[in-house]
Amino acid sequence: MWYNKKGEHFWVQLHFKTEQGIRNFTGEEAERMRGIDPDCVTRDLYEAIAKGDYPSWRLEVQIMTPEQARDYRFDPFDITKVWPHGEFPPMDVGRLVLNRNPENYFAEVEQAAFSPGNFVPGIGPSPDKMLQGRLFSYHDTHRHRLGPNYHLLPINAPRACTMNSYQRDGSMRCDNNGGGGPNYWPNSFGGPAPDPKVAPPPIDISGPTGRHAYELGDVDFVQAGDLFRKVMKDMDREHLVNNIVSHLKNAQKRIQLRQAALFYKADPDYGTRVGKGLGIDVKEIKRLAAMPQEERVKATAQ
Amino acid sequence: MWYNKKGEHFWVQLHFKTEQGIRNFTGEEAERMRGIDPDCVTRDLYEAIAKGDYPSWRLEVQIMTPEQARDYRFDPFDITKVWPHGEFPPMDVGRLVLNRNPENYFAEVEQAAFSPGNFVPGIGPSPDKMLQGRLFSYHDTHRHRLGPNYHLLPINAPRACTMNSYQRDGSMRCDNNGGGGPNYWPNSFGGPAPDPKVAPPPIDISGPTGRHAYELGDVDFVQAGDLFRKVMKDMDREHLVNNIVSHLKNAQKRIQLRQAALFYKADPDYGTRVGKGLGIDVKEIKRLAAMPQEERVKATAQ
Amino acid sequence: MWYNKKGEHFWVQLHFKTEQGIRNFTGEEAERMRGIDPDCVTRDLYEAIAKGDYPSWRLEVQIMTPEQARDYRFDPFDITKVWPHGEFPPMDVGRLVLNRNPENYFAEVEQAAFSPGNFVPGIGPSPDKMLQGRLFSYHDTHRHRLGPNYHLLPINAPRACTMNSYQRDGSMRCDNNGGGGPNYWPNSFGGPAPDPKVAPPPIDISGPTGRHAYELGDVDFVQAGDLFRKVMKDMDREHLVNNIVSHLKNAQKRIQLRQAALFYKADPDYGTRVGKGLGIDVKEIKRLAAMPQEERVKATAQ
Amino acid sequence: MWYNKKGEHFWVQLHFKTEQGIRNFTGEEAERMRGIDPDCVTRDLYEAIAKGDYPSWRLEVQIMTPEQARDYRFDPFDITKVWPHGEFPPMDVGRLVLNRNPENYFAEVEQAAFSPGNFVPGIGPSPDKMLQGRLFSYHDTHRHRLGPNYHLLPINAPRACTMNSYQRDGSMRCDNNGGGGPNYWPNSFGGPAPDPKVAPPPIDISGPTGRHAYELGDVDFVQAGDLFRKVMKDMDREHLVNNIVSHLKNAQKRIQLRQAALFYKADPDYGTRVGKGLGIDVKEIKRLAAMPQEERVKATAQ
Repeated sequence: MWYNKKGEHFWVQLHFKTEQGIRNFTGEEAERMRGIDPDCVTRDLYEAIAKGDYPSWRLEVQIMTPEQARDYRFDPFDITKVWPHGEFPPMDVGRLVLNRNPENYFAEVEQAAFSPGNFVPGIGPSPDKMLQGRLFSYHDTHRHRLGPNYHLLPINAPRACTMNSYQRDGSMRCDNNGGGGPNYWPNSFGGPAPDPKVAPPPIDISGPTGRHAYELGDVDFVQAGDLFRKVMKDMDREHLVNNIVSHLKNAQKRIQLRQAALFYKADPDYGTRVGKGLGIDVKEIKRLAAMPQEERVKATAQ
Repeated sequence: MWYNKKGEHFWVQLHFKTEQGIRNFTGEEAERMRGIDPDCVTRDLYEAIAKGDYPSWRLEVQIMTPEQARDYRFDPFDITKVWPHGEFPPMDVGRLVLNRNPENYFAEVEQAAFSPGNFVPGIGPSPDKMLQGRLFSYHDTHRHRLGPNYHLLPINAPRACTMNSYQRDGSMRCDNNGGGGPNYWPNSFGGPAPDPKVAPPPIDISGPTGRHAYELGDVDFVQAGDLFRKVMKDMDREHLVNNIVSHLKNAQKRIQLRQAALFYKADPDYGTRVGKGLGIDVKEIKRLAAMPQEERVKATAQ
Repeated sequence: MWYNKKGEHFWVQLHFKTEQGIRNFTGEEAERMRGIDPDCVTRDLYEAIAKGDYPSWRLEVQIMTPEQARDYRFDPFDITKVWPHGEFPPMDVGRLVLNRNPENYFAEVEQAAFSPGNFVPGIGPSPDKMLQGRLFSYHDTHRHRLGPNYHLLPINAPRACTMNSYQRDGSMRCDNNGGGGPNYWPNSFGGPAPDPKVAPPPIDISGPTGRHAYELGDVDFVQAGDLFRKVMKDMDREHLVNNIVSHLKNAQKRIQLRQAALFYKADPDYGTRVGKGLGIDVKEIKRLAAMPQEERVKATAQ
Repeated sequence: MWYNKKGEHFWVQLHFKTEQGIRNFTGEEAERMRGIDPDCVTRDLYEAIAKGDYPSWRLEVQIMTPEQARDYRFDPFDITKVWPHGEFPPMDVGRLVLNRNPENYFAEVEQAAFSPGNFVPGIGPSPDKMLQGRLFSYHDTHRHRLGPNYHLLPINAPRACTMNSYQRDGSMRCDNNGGGGPNYWPNSFGGPAPDPKVAPPPIDISGPTGRHAYELGDVDFVQAGDLFRKVMKDMDREHLVNNIVSHLKNAQKRIQLRQAALFYKADPDYGTRVGKGLGIDVKEIKRLAAMPQEERVKATAQ
């Protein structure tokens, strides 16, 4: 969510587009590099920065209004879905450039604690389920991994402002712990106060609370099929099928069938090629692909 | 929430009523006992159980339908409010008897981990704010205090059933950690599965999400005043006022005034007696009591 | 141990002598204060410093040469023993003045980590058993209580110098973690090096390693008796006996007898008065006092 | 140390000799396997046990009397040294057979806590420096890694006896924590007592305490040279030199020289071949090899 001073909000998707170009290892090349130099990618990053060949990314944003989101033909907060570029044209808004290597790996990399629950004014959370869980879990993880005062470590502390809170004490409190000020809120001794002006605007929600199982629908296969058919080239499709086959080849046959049926639902050619690579019956794959998910699970149960 | 097999749910308040009768220390007696025997109450409990004089409580329940709750004249999920007995008559449903002392204090008391987030079929959470936060925080606290496997400690493990989950590993995993079974869900190898039949029914919610400040209303003082006027006896009122005065007497005068004004709002006699005990101006208290909360805060600011 | 540039070492006992004078609560007064104001002593300390009435202690030192220690008539490293002032005259060497209160209790008191294993040049450890165990256990405790980087907390970090070590990483490393320097020793890249010039001189030890049980000897009762007879006044003796009686009065009779016999060994009057206070047989106490320790334990076993 | 009922003790070296035969990867093969199957060795172990092809080791012991140790021509407690088989003939005393795979990797492998500080009667510690430090550090590590009650985990708990101690409480105390028994020692309520009959015999030690730097002597190169000359075959020597060269080839030249000089001291051919592999001056290596260690360090300093 991005919001403005008028309290209007918009849903956005951010895309960092590499300016380095894209180059991949084949499966075979990757296997070889794992043996020779398993850190080759980190090393490449470090060395590029060290010699001033800074890696960079162009930042694109797509914007959707709350009205567009409400009745969209699929759940726009499902992170497995792409927002069609025709309807939501990407706009360039900036660049990300990595122009300095850390001086000490532990202090500046291992201790770094990013969280999608940290917002600056103008940015807030969306109903994306993957995000909602992470609003909590990143902070929880940091407290477990680094301790409750991880925000005081130089790599995590804000530089442009002072962070005020009434959090006190805890393991390794390495600042003055609030000095002689009050440690409770509200107080009438002039302690820092929340500023409601910078809060994200409320959004209206309604519906039954509960644990709702996800129901797989045909819409979930459309973009996967498009990716295979339209975005990938012949060589990509061949690599993809080979990689999948090499990972699935030791699985039980019933699991190979169930999985291949899902690829088949995305694109018959996709499922057929995986099935052939695994040496299993393509007719059976097609039959399974035609079933509803629950029936397919039963048909391939142990 | 209590719910039945038909999926109907009800809001309930549970009351444990002592069968020992109620006896209190005066402030002076408590002060003396703190010096002589600060553990006197625990000791009394232990010794009573040891000699077979088992302490017991009668369990009463009050029941409210979702329809009654929806438009009730105050927030029925505000734990500072009593549900009037005339409208929601308490019903006896059982007794709690403490009939065994722990053999080892650390193992069976310090390591005990209760949580309002643990439910048996038929019981679920309510929208009570104090409860909602605690659904998370008790488990979080136990993980911090005892470790992620606290549920395996004998004092915390269920006795009548096996608890199945896909949680694995973690500090001090003292059982077989799931043995050779799958550690992910869903799986197609026969691992334990959730049973939706025993889930609490969904409840409908709607409204703007956000951080909403609590607004103090006149309704918040009605029951406090009734308690002072109708439930307490003369001696209780005297003790109460004395205890409050002894705690407030070292506070700044502006804070004494603000607090006494809140007591005055509950009952003029209540606020007046606290004010006199503190030697502050009762007219000023009355004046502050008549203000809205925000104005009163400003009038007594630093 | 104090040692000089020539490598000579001496054993020292340090005594901090209050300049406030000594005033105690009686048992009854203490019991009352526990109820009224359990923090009264901390409060007294804080308030005295706050108003500039700084508490202070005179530091005296007694010095023993290694030669004197070798054949001394009791173990000079037994901390329960006093070094006779006639033989080892106390010398004034300084004062300790508490002239500032902490600004934040947690940051500057709870996080403080003293250790008898931290030495400045000129001071080293002695064979005192209580000290030897603590050379390890204080640091271990700090690592458990505060974390491995507790030495970086402002209250624990040295002010007059930089502490150099090759310790790296660990929970809450709040400095630059050694930057880009080597993290191993020895190294040939100019990292900090130990300076053997400031090491304490070796002391010669010899004897059988093993777990040696402590054998109680008559020498262990001499100074306890002297304290009772010569240092204490009538009022002190009366308070002491009353305090002991009030603590022992609920013990099993066999334990009262065994303990009173130990007081009797220190001084017959001491044991007799404790015995009378407990209402037990003084003749039996005397009989037990005459036994060797092992026999006395058997005679008073369960 | 092994000791008998008469209190006599002996120093022993234990050797586990594989009954599988020895097969190694070449550097190239290892590099390839890291890419293809980095867990290949664990897998091989697991699969061999699963199919009943149990791996086994013959246990040999060499015995040295305290008298032989006292004046031996090198430090017999230096773990880098072999005890000559002619003087201390290895004797077969048993076999180690791995005949069961763990059912759960975390519970039975990750949580396993071995310690050289755990002894059964008849076995005690030796003055080996590597062992002395580890008597403490393994337990410390387990407490850090698993918690203070790691000895209660099924994989670590003794099976043939009950372990008694007065250790109580602590994180995840999953037994009854000593129940209602005393938690201090000595006590006169029948708690478990140490049994001095099974303690290792004391050994006499004497000398100056202190931090003593290790001084490299010619004796430290004899066995390394013998290994290269007499134990290794041509192919082994070639592999060894190649492996060293591939690891040293990116080091600074001064470090290559210093390290090659150490190999030269073990055997001139050894140092010469490493030097040639690195393309550095063999005459310079020889010159450095002839220096005392301190001088060599200076000659190759930064």
